[in-house]
Amino acid sequence: MTIYRAQHSGFCFGVKRAIKLAQDAKAHYIGKQIFTLGELIHNPQIVHELKNGGIEPANSVDELHDSVVIIRSHGITRSERLELQQNGNVIIDATCPYVARTHELIRDMIREGYQVYIMGDADHPEVIGMLSYGDEHTRVISPREDVCKANYQKVSLISQTTQKMDDLIDLSGKLLNCTKELRIFNTICLATSERQTASLSLASETDLMFVVGGKRSSNTRQLYAICKAQTECYHIEDETEITPEMLIGKETIGITAGASTPDDMIIKVYNQIKEINRDPSFAKSIEEIPLFKEESC
Amino acid sequence: MTIYRAQHSGFCFGVKRAIKLAQDAKAHYIGKQIFTLGELIHNPQIVHELKNGGIEPANSVDELHDSVVIIRSHGITRSERLELQQNGNVIIDATCPYVARTHELIRDMIREGYQVYIMGDADHPEVIGMLSYGDEHTRVISPREDVCKANYQKVSLISQTTQKMDDLIDLSGKLLNCTKELRIFNTICLATSERQTASLSLASETDLMFVVGGKRSSNTRQLYAICKAQTECYHIEDETEITPEMLIGKETIGITAGASTPDDMIIKVYNQIKEINRDPSFAKSIEEIPLFKEESC
Repeated sequence: MTIYRAQHSGFCFGVKRAIKLAQDAKAHYIGKQIFTLGELIHNPQIVHELKNGGIEPANSVDELHDSVVIIRSHGITRSERLELQQNGNVIIDATCPYVARTHELIRDMIREGYQVYIMGDADHPEVIGMLSYGDEHTRVISPREDVCKANYQKVSLISQTTQKMDDLIDLSGKLLNCTKELRIFNTICLATSERQTASLSLASETDLMFVVGGKRSSNTRQLYAICKAQTECYHIEDETEITPEMLIGKETIGITAGASTPDDMIIKVYNQIKEINRDPSFAKSIEEIPLFKEESC
Repeated sequence: MTIYRAQHSGFCFGVKRAIKLAQDAKAHYIGKQIFTLGELIHNPQIVHELKNGGIEPANSVDELHDSVVIIRSHGITRSERLELQQNGNVIIDATCPYVARTHELIRDMIREGYQVYIMGDADHPEVIGMLSYGDEHTRVISPREDVCKANYQKVSLISQTTQKMDDLIDLSGKLLNCTKELRIFNTICLATSERQTASLSLASETDLMFVVGGKRSSNTRQLYAICKAQTECYHIEDETEITPEMLIGKETIGITAGASTPDDMIIKVYNQIKEINRDPSFAKSIEEIPLFKEESC
């Protein structure tokens, strides 16, 4: 049995940064209760570890007065930020810089008179945050939407950072038919697209894939959908979900992981497969797990 | 036999305007020699008429000193304009306002630090004029070109006014893969695309099409290519090219015309077909020729 991990699996830059900021806050505000507004990242193990370290998720801005509050990597809305400030909280801003840039761009485009469209999932916290930087005309659109109901002179299209490039291209083509000027910002995070491409490539070469990450993590669910279309696939949160039955008759197994999955969890999953297979050559670091590299074409 | 003319055939706004400006110049500068820099429009009859009225095409800026010079609808280069001014010429600017707008946009985009791409035919006078408003990095690209040889932060794509919308969409999609910001100006002239669509629609319903316009007119040649793919088709400059043999066995005949073809010529073509067919119901005005209207779908 051969096990590979996909390139670009696991923590992205924004998630690493958020965790680092949380750890720094803990070291700085010793003995003080620290909150994150919503769960810092979509990973139950990390959230659990943070709780143990005294960093608790709060559900709403209303609960937070004169506290230390970490803004998660997805960002928050303009009014939430204002309320946090007005209620005397110390704000530690772990908004992913790529997400923060979309806020700036939306503000700039509104100032320059553009009709702004946000390509993304209207229910996602990142998109809810982005939308709050628009004006009353700013709209969230999905890639498959009929966009040409109205004509505008100047349209700007800005994407949620985890969307697909092909969808941005399709939507741009549609919008070009109903505007004189289309200003597109490719704000899709490179880590997301690279992870998807590498996972797809590995899935197409294996008998079985494990996609590791929080069940609520949107980018992990996307990875699962991509891999499932190629081969037998399980979306797991940790190694305990792996059963011997899953591995029967499998020669080549792939592992990939969402942006909020720590390397430790990928190692545990790898070692669990080895364990079930009675192969004692466990990995101690992520580097010891063979990396699947697609042949250049 | 039924004869139809295609919607949006003949003179576009820019051509009508250029001819009007030439006529006004003739009325204003009585007895004075007037020049056009290049032929005013790509139509031999109109050029011949203008010559008879004392408006002569000049081949180069060098020939023009202290004259009255009409700039044709395609526009000219920045340096040609400067030379005309320096040599004491009176300039009557018949540059199509849609073309003039591309000059302004290119200037603006250079000022704002964009890498500018012009989608168009590098040899066409309109594109040569456009390019002169760019900087040393500005490039003309064709829709089928591999554009992602370099990466830029900010790219602006501006189209020659007579290009196809589908090509602009394709090229935008390609450019999105190699830039963080893509600012597209849809400078494709509506008249061009409407004329192409209407001619295609008529051609698909007829046994024979006549595409009327100068043999050197680029938009007329495009129309011919479009119609020829649908039905038997002739590109003619005037009615004398129609022979009785062409009409044998044809029940439904379509007529369309390029942007530089006057209504008078369309009427002559219509009447010539009637004449050969021994049908004395000639048209006296363009309105008397049945217009083909596509059923709404």
